[in-house]
Amino acid sequence: MTNKGVGILNPHFKIGLIRVVTLSDEQMLNLHGQLIEHYFPELQVESRCIDAQPTGIHDEQTEQLAVPKIIKLAKEWQGLDAIVVSCANDPAVKELREELSIPVIGAGESTALLATRYGQTFGVLGITEEIPRGYRKTFGDRIVGNCLPEGIHSTLDLPTTEGKKSVTAKALELKELGAEVIALACTGMSTIGIAKELEQVCHIPVIDPVMAEGLMTYFECLRKE
Amino acid sequence: MTNKGVGILNPHFKIGLIRVVTLSDEQMLNLHGQLIEHYFPELQVESRCIDAQPTGIHDEQTEQLAVPKIIKLAKEWQGLDAIVVSCANDPAVKELREELSIPVIGAGESTALLATRYGQTFGVLGITEEIPRGYRKTFGDRIVGNCLPEGIHSTLDLPTTEGKKSVTAKALELKELGAEVIALACTGMSTIGIAKELEQVCHIPVIDPVMAEGLMTYFECLRKE
Repeated sequence: MTNKGVGILNPHFKIGLIRVVTLSDEQMLNLHGQLIEHYFPELQVESRCIDAQPTGIHDEQTEQLAVPKIIKLAKEWQGLDAIVVSCANDPAVKELREELSIPVIGAGESTALLATRYGQTFGVLGITEEIPRGYRKTFGDRIVGNCLPEGIHSTLDLPTTEGKKSVTAKALELKELGAEVIALACTGMSTIGIAKELEQVCHIPVIDPVMAEGLMTYFECLRKE
Repeated sequence: MTNKGVGILNPHFKIGLIRVVTLSDEQMLNLHGQLIEHYFPELQVESRCIDAQPTGIHDEQTEQLAVPKIIKLAKEWQGLDAIVVSCANDPAVKELREELSIPVIGAGESTALLATRYGQTFGVLGITEEIPRGYRKTFGDRIVGNCLPEGIHSTLDLPTTEGKKSVTAKALELKELGAEVIALACTGMSTIGIAKELEQVCHIPVIDPVMAEGLMTYFECLRKE
């Protein structure tokens, strides 16, 4: 009954991953997809991005601008087993579930769900003033502190030395405020691979959004198999 | 960066799986482990069972009898990346987390956690009068109906034609009572592979405990990698 290795020759599931930041660099575009393929060899991920939003989604206005683009992109995409909206805000996820017959997975809802395994009080660490809806819905009034590290305005600020310092300081602050778990709330945090570093500094679980969305995608695919 | 196929030649993670029913038949003993290896080719699962409990855990007395045996078995087991207690009651899971340095995963807590992805009201379908603690803790007052199908007294009643009929009738009853999701609450339900059949009859998500414990085990392993 074992089917070890099916993953090599013929990955089971074909996944479409939507980046909500406009990226012309192929390597940057594919980064979340490659992380997911690394974690879950049975998933084969193709990435596409929305156009004309080089700074991604970082407030309500940029989200509203992005939603119709995400819906159009997803609806035109054929031959997929599941679709991932690789953004902690879960933009268009609700709308797409109503329109598509395949599973739709958001980074935010996945990260929040998995964070509940590890504690009762949550720090949400992202790049927006407002805590993304998936985290608010899942954690309710069990969120400590606020979401935004100092000096961070968009996902582009994260890879800098200053950006990483600021994220680390925020994580320590959230722990100090009583967070038992930190749920990262920007997939740019996965791109810079900071979850593990933060765990080493804070000594509490830190949930990585791209790993989380990949896990829930794999679960959805297994459930449909 | 892709590492497709590592699963074939050298499964990443070594998992110990504890069956809480005494099984002398090697094939029966390994059934949950083989299901997990099928779903997650990167996990290599060895199964062991507790002794002198041929009808498993099905009430408080049989659980109390099992807990020290599970703890002893787990503590003596070396060389593992994670340990799974493959029972919806999560017996000894809390105790083992305090004693072991590797992740400990219970079937019940995993199933309940994943069920929350799919709705707001929950049917819990198992083999015990009382709803197992992991489900009560996660769902709180959002549980509809009770847990026990008619005529089912232990995991041994499940594989019979009557047993399957009774489980199906219970699932339909829970849906009728308003369940948006059914969380199966006995790993014997996975052994008979009934989740998919129930979904086809009930048209609501039905969460399989062995798939759920496997998913959370894989997540724990990835997080520690």
